[in-house]
Amino acid sequence: MTRLAIGVDLGGTQVRAALIDEAGIVHARAALATAAEAGPAVVTAQLKDLAAMVSAGVARDRLVGVGVSSPGPIDTLRGVALSIPTLAGFVDVPFRQMIEDAIGLKVWLENDGKAAALGEWRFGAGRTCQNLIYITVSTGIGGGVALDGRLLHGRQGLAGHIGHMTIVRDGEPCLCGNRGCWEAYASGPAFARRACARAEGDISTRLGRHGAPIDGRAVFAAAARGDDLAMALVAEEADLLGIGIASLLHLFSPEIVILGGGVANGFDLLRPGILARIDAAAMPAFRDTPIVRAALGDNSGLIGAAALVFDTGSRATPGM
Amino acid sequence: MTRLAIGVDLGGTQVRAALIDEAGIVHARAALATAAEAGPAVVTAQLKDLAAMVSAGVARDRLVGVGVSSPGPIDTLRGVALSIPTLAGFVDVPFRQMIEDAIGLKVWLENDGKAAALGEWRFGAGRTCQNLIYITVSTGIGGGVALDGRLLHGRQGLAGHIGHMTIVRDGEPCLCGNRGCWEAYASGPAFARRACARAEGDISTRLGRHGAPIDGRAVFAAAARGDDLAMALVAEEADLLGIGIASLLHLFSPEIVILGGGVANGFDLLRPGILARIDAAAMPAFRDTPIVRAALGDNSGLIGAAALVFDTGSRATPGM
Repeated sequence: MTRLAIGVDLGGTQVRAALIDEAGIVHARAALATAAEAGPAVVTAQLKDLAAMVSAGVARDRLVGVGVSSPGPIDTLRGVALSIPTLAGFVDVPFRQMIEDAIGLKVWLENDGKAAALGEWRFGAGRTCQNLIYITVSTGIGGGVALDGRLLHGRQGLAGHIGHMTIVRDGEPCLCGNRGCWEAYASGPAFARRACARAEGDISTRLGRHGAPIDGRAVFAAAARGDDLAMALVAEEADLLGIGIASLLHLFSPEIVILGGGVANGFDLLRPGILARIDAAAMPAFRDTPIVRAALGDNSGLIGAAALVFDTGSRATPGM
Repeated sequence: MTRLAIGVDLGGTQVRAALIDEAGIVHARAALATAAEAGPAVVTAQLKDLAAMVSAGVARDRLVGVGVSSPGPIDTLRGVALSIPTLAGFVDVPFRQMIEDAIGLKVWLENDGKAAALGEWRFGAGRTCQNLIYITVSTGIGGGVALDGRLLHGRQGLAGHIGHMTIVRDGEPCLCGNRGCWEAYASGPAFARRACARAEGDISTRLGRHGAPIDGRAVFAAAARGDDLAMALVAEEADLLGIGIASLLHLFSPEIVILGGGVANGFDLLRPGILARIDAAAMPAFRDTPIVRAALGDNSGLIGAAALVFDTGSRATPGM
């Protein structure tokens, strides 16, 4: 009898759940629009509903538990949401306990970046590795790191806030309050902001023609068609990503770097520029590290959340 | 009968050895000027001589082994010196094996930053912690990280090259070949270069008067006496250190940050500026992390090297 886990990927706009077995196979799925303004009790009720939907008809004793991927910061050692910017009322909330009380199954709560890293590690692009970095580049830059065969947690489980290393001293303001963070330069919104600003005075580009919206997807599409401005914007984004990745190589020495999130949709276009910067910025011993796209796409976090349930070695709370 | 280990701290100018017991107590010491130009065979013979000096009269069966702290980069998993810039001929050298053959005891070889981190963790400022970063700021910036109760190794044991994260995009050239590395801005030589440049046109400062040399020590001394330029230089150095430390807090989430190396001689003067930058740059959950001075001073690496011998959980080669 295969053991099953419920994985939940809680995002600011959507909350998704899946019933997954130990091989990472998805047996059922469900999703809801996140009640992001309604507070922790309502969000917890959404998780309960989703868990019921995906596990309908499954014998209770086959369910090992529920893994939840959540936006941070959360103290994953205590299971407490410290202060989630995208979800109203999630300040010092004992979220793990609330979910356990609602669903009646053991719950593992993890930061979304770390959950996605675990998903890619166990079932995606990092399966054969002992040392990997997963980077998600979308609204922000987050991620997770596994070294020496273990997911890194650190104090309060807060390791891996990789978007908030300074790459430009006293540079652009970041949403975190600091200046010059990698996220402030290389996130999806930063990429789109540069595109909007440069397209405005550029008569040769197709970007933004006839009032078309300018976002990362539009820039990648235009670059693929050979639009000069779009290609320059992609090259700059790739360079900024490469600066941060080169730093991460020196800091962590991974065997592989896995890129996910919305910006990874342009991975093939970004890749040459990322590699060029790494070649220039990384010390020789680090230069050959493969940089690959996430194999699980949008599901790294969902699959990773379920993997938390099976993966005793990777949890922040191995004593539970 | 107490078990004993020989710790060796191999530096570019000096090689030191000590006989140490499991409590970290030093029973004997010896030192030589490093034969830095003479090649691996001669340096290995120096290690053999030092080991003989500090273990003279000790029963062989009390000696568990030899721990060696060496400048990097070394592949600590294979025990191979990849390319040590400060020691001639140390390119792809099976250094661990050479030392074992010479001394006839089991040898553990570790990067100097990681060895010092282990020393501070086991016997110094980080004794009670499960998560710590040790930073040495001297000729370069190096260090080591312990997270979740384990020293981080990564691929080839090369994790922890913390001096080579970019803090200024396309900034000052670094010895590593990259531009804008933390080391290029906040190392001892960078600090001294800024001091020399600014003292030149400054008639109010005492720095460099009567041809006195200007280095970190001189700047700290002048700052302690209230010299305005020296105080401004210390404030800038502290700010640069704080930028890098704030990034490291986000990346690793340590319980404590331990500062060692020559620049740490000015720790009391640097501390307020470091903390001010961390307050501005670090997210709230990370701001209260204690930043302290290394407790073992110049001996973090020497004690840490010996600790490698006793510390099965921290070695890069747990299978040995």
